[in-house]
Amino acid sequence: MSGRLSAQVGLSASRAMGVQAMEQGSKLHSIREVADAFGMAVSALRYYDELGVLPATERRGGVRYYDERSLAVLAYVQLLHDDAMLPLDRTQQVIDARTAGQRAARLRGGADALRENAERMLSAADMLDHLSQCPARDPLTCPVTGAELDRRVERAMANGMRRPSTRMSL
Amino acid sequence: MSGRLSAQVGLSASRAMGVQAMEQGSKLHSIREVADAFGMAVSALRYYDELGVLPATERRGGVRYYDERSLAVLAYVQLLHDDAMLPLDRTQQVIDARTAGQRAARLRGGADALRENAERMLSAADMLDHLSQCPARDPLTCPVTGAELDRRVERAMANGMRRPSTRMSL
Repeated sequence: MSGRLSAQVGLSASRAMGVQAMEQGSKLHSIREVADAFGMAVSALRYYDELGVLPATERRGGVRYYDERSLAVLAYVQLLHDDAMLPLDRTQQVIDARTAGQRAARLRGGADALRENAERMLSAADMLDHLSQCPARDPLTCPVTGAELDRRVERAMANGMRRPSTRMSL
Repeated sequence: MSGRLSAQVGLSASRAMGVQAMEQGSKLHSIREVADAFGMAVSALRYYDELGVLPATERRGGVRYYDERSLAVLAYVQLLHDDAMLPLDRTQQVIDARTAGQRAARLRGGADALRENAERMLSAADMLDHLSQCPARDPLTCPVTGAELDRRVERAMANGMRRPSTRMSL
């Protein structure tokens, strides 16, 4: 545990790390600054640190600090996890890939799934536009919304039903 | 509680409800059939029933059954919650709206937020395409990916940082 280690080695070691970070010309940012900048909760950054998705560059007085490279990795995590909707474990696998080929293998299918989702969302946005201006009190009776919902029910019943639908026997 | 009620009134009442449903020409589908058809877990449908988002049409022998109208409402729930990404409580508010105006008010801003999300996903999909064929071992050093991540970091630091970034004092 890096927290325990730094408590053991005391301040001189973390000062040395701070010096090293500065000598490399890398600014350090506190976890609070990073969280505010990237629109995240501090607890989420702590969680990423514990998982190893985004390790803090160093700790000082119990506070995590991040260098410039870490900010770029965080942007990478947000791209993969928040925007591309990869689960966190898969995000980590992509980040940890050792070769370009391994990374490609771990991303396989991701872009297509994402585009499918986006298309579904765009078509739902059109339906929301209609629902916002449709005068029907009950959307199920509206020719536009009702027809869309009927299509969805038919598709579900055609694709999904494993058994013929059961009429209640009396 | 409808479960307790049907236990009290016994089978004859639920038979009568079954008859009524059939007289209206509405087939009844068991919760398992509906879950399979709509690609959901049975537990999710139970949850929707308990929340009141999608009440079961009736219960018989502890099993929930759904009529044709319920399937259309479920398609409506999936449109709003799964595709349009409205939280479940907001989904329920939209479904429970008593007038077209109330529904419109409860949907306000939803379509725009959805389109923004979809655009972000589509642009992430393009990045995944690049990442899948980029020969760079470290994406942060790739001119394309690295530049995109730099832009994201700069945007975060410009918009988000409440305080000037702190250089570690020694």
